[in-house]
Amino acid sequence: MREINLDNLDDIARGAGILGTGGGGDPYIGKLLAREAIRKHGPVRVVDIDEVAPDATVVPVSGMGAPTVLLERVPNGGEELAALRALEKHIGRAATHIAPIEVGGVNSMLPIACAAEAGLPIVDGDAMGRAFPEAQMVLPGLIGVTNSPMALADDKGNTIIVEAVDNHAAERIARAVCVELGCQISAADTVLRGDQLADGLVPATLTLAERLGAAVREARAAHSDPVAAARAMLAGVHLLTGKVVDVSRRTEGGFARGRARIEGIADEAGQVLELDFQNEHLLATRDGVTVATTPDLICVLDSESGDPVTTEGLRYGLRVSVLAARCDPRWTSPGGLALAGPRYFGYDVDYLPFGS
Amino acid sequence: MREINLDNLDDIARGAGILGTGGGGDPYIGKLLAREAIRKHGPVRVVDIDEVAPDATVVPVSGMGAPTVLLERVPNGGEELAALRALEKHIGRAATHIAPIEVGGVNSMLPIACAAEAGLPIVDGDAMGRAFPEAQMVLPGLIGVTNSPMALADDKGNTIIVEAVDNHAAERIARAVCVELGCQISAADTVLRGDQLADGLVPATLTLAERLGAAVREARAAHSDPVAAARAMLAGVHLLTGKVVDVSRRTEGGFARGRARIEGIADEAGQVLELDFQNEHLLATRDGVTVATTPDLICVLDSESGDPVTTEGLRYGLRVSVLAARCDPRWTSPGGLALAGPRYFGYDVDYLPFGS
Repeated sequence: MREINLDNLDDIARGAGILGTGGGGDPYIGKLLAREAIRKHGPVRVVDIDEVAPDATVVPVSGMGAPTVLLERVPNGGEELAALRALEKHIGRAATHIAPIEVGGVNSMLPIACAAEAGLPIVDGDAMGRAFPEAQMVLPGLIGVTNSPMALADDKGNTIIVEAVDNHAAERIARAVCVELGCQISAADTVLRGDQLADGLVPATLTLAERLGAAVREARAAHSDPVAAARAMLAGVHLLTGKVVDVSRRTEGGFARGRARIEGIADEAGQVLELDFQNEHLLATRDGVTVATTPDLICVLDSESGDPVTTEGLRYGLRVSVLAARCDPRWTSPGGLALAGPRYFGYDVDYLPFGS
Repeated sequence: MREINLDNLDDIARGAGILGTGGGGDPYIGKLLAREAIRKHGPVRVVDIDEVAPDATVVPVSGMGAPTVLLERVPNGGEELAALRALEKHIGRAATHIAPIEVGGVNSMLPIACAAEAGLPIVDGDAMGRAFPEAQMVLPGLIGVTNSPMALADDKGNTIIVEAVDNHAAERIARAVCVELGCQISAADTVLRGDQLADGLVPATLTLAERLGAAVREARAAHSDPVAAARAMLAGVHLLTGKVVDVSRRTEGGFARGRARIEGIADEAGQVLELDFQNEHLLATRDGVTVATTPDLICVLDSESGDPVTTEGLRYGLRVSVLAARCDPRWTSPGGLALAGPRYFGYDVDYLPFGS
């Protein structure tokens, strides 16, 4: 993949939705926004992390808010560009590259749309290697890159620049603004120099998303098991295939929080998997035993199609397959777990090392 | 008054507290902050509106939040300067003058402290001619001056720049930030050119505050009635002298909201005055009849000393005298009443023309 165009966008959206662990927004809405921008402005050039000049100015852009709200309040398009322009004005220099802050249905697509609109290349990588709900949960935070200055923009034309004392404070301030402006805004933050990308980003996640999306599509076309194809590509672990029998969710503090219960079917009948989420799936408990925790990836796929199921897309009766996959190893360092381990989110369990 | 120094600061604080109609923060805390800044940096030069060059950059600075919180969380000092510096950086030019955004106990003193710290003169005037609770309630709004860009700062070192689509949106965004940061932040906004001051400010309100404060002090020294002295200087109307018998207040949405009940004493025994407030006194109802409304000034003074009583200083048993005074005539225009009339605040009464 050397460019993102109308032909490979669907695969990227599908794969990114799976890697987004239930979060990062609905892939369908994200795809529509990126498709519109590519139609209007042309394909987006993709560059590898090691192709980026050391003094480049790489700006991650993203949507912030509750995915539940996104479903009812579809972005106009252009909000990320507004955040980018506000940030560029504030820092006094122009972005040379766009990057995704995370992998996820909408948050992989919005940077593509923004890159098309701005006429800039996009970096093949992201700052999480998955999706996380809060702005400070990024690998650049582990190497001392701040998320301030952070530029926020909404669809009405409001822009806000946050210069916070630390990454958690920026998240708190941005989240308060986000809630006030209707639980959906755009952000440009965590500016990286080219020579910080190797340490600050997970490489090649756009390529991985495309390959993953293609594997699911091809398995489907060949009438083989698309979920197995995805699991194989991610070297993932099967947790349960079953039926969603209960979902409780609330939109709270600018997040979609809740819990889902899945009952096994066929030869897994009698087993129960519970998923706890805050925008993303964070904890999987099977028959009362913790089987996967954040920061590892907990991915929910439609059993038939292999398409990703977002936390806001969970509904009674849906047949899903749940798998776990290993996160980027930097997340399981003490600093990484302090940022995004299960205890940060208030769950009374320790990180469960993947595969144990 | 050509400068503000340690000798006239007390009179200004007392007078500004009276003109602040119960809001703008506790005069004592404000005075301490201004005194400290003047001790350290020297007196502040005061300039009349018509002395300011047409192309001057006049920046109003203020504290924003709930006065009830101010009592428990005293500013460090320097927060307004941080907001000023963030604003100057954003607009790309330096302030030439500081101005008060409103008249009030703290919000008349913080600009003095900021002017001392920045080594800038202060303009003798303010954008309200009284105090109001919300950021868009300023006369410059009536002549098309926006309150964006608005710079906000807190005592931890966080700064935020708001570029909103209109003055109400800026207030909403700033208030959300204010609440998140603990209900007390500093603001620099509503930048005025020198040639906008005549239309945008109420002139000579620092001088009026000083004269009012001096009149109260002198009456007290002469064992005459300080409340009568204040009323005479403001051409005010007496509403009631009595005892506070009930106060209900809540800190809500970043404001101190509530209602107080005052029962007449001596030859006013049997009369009851009720005051509704949102940071400032907004509505006075005597024996069930509306007798004064925002945007006119409703001032509560300690009956003995003539000192101003802020809304957060109201407490059971306090002997107070309440007077009403005429607001700047621009406030009673249709645009002024839309911004700050009683219906904006949710009271089901029309503006009561002063003296009717």
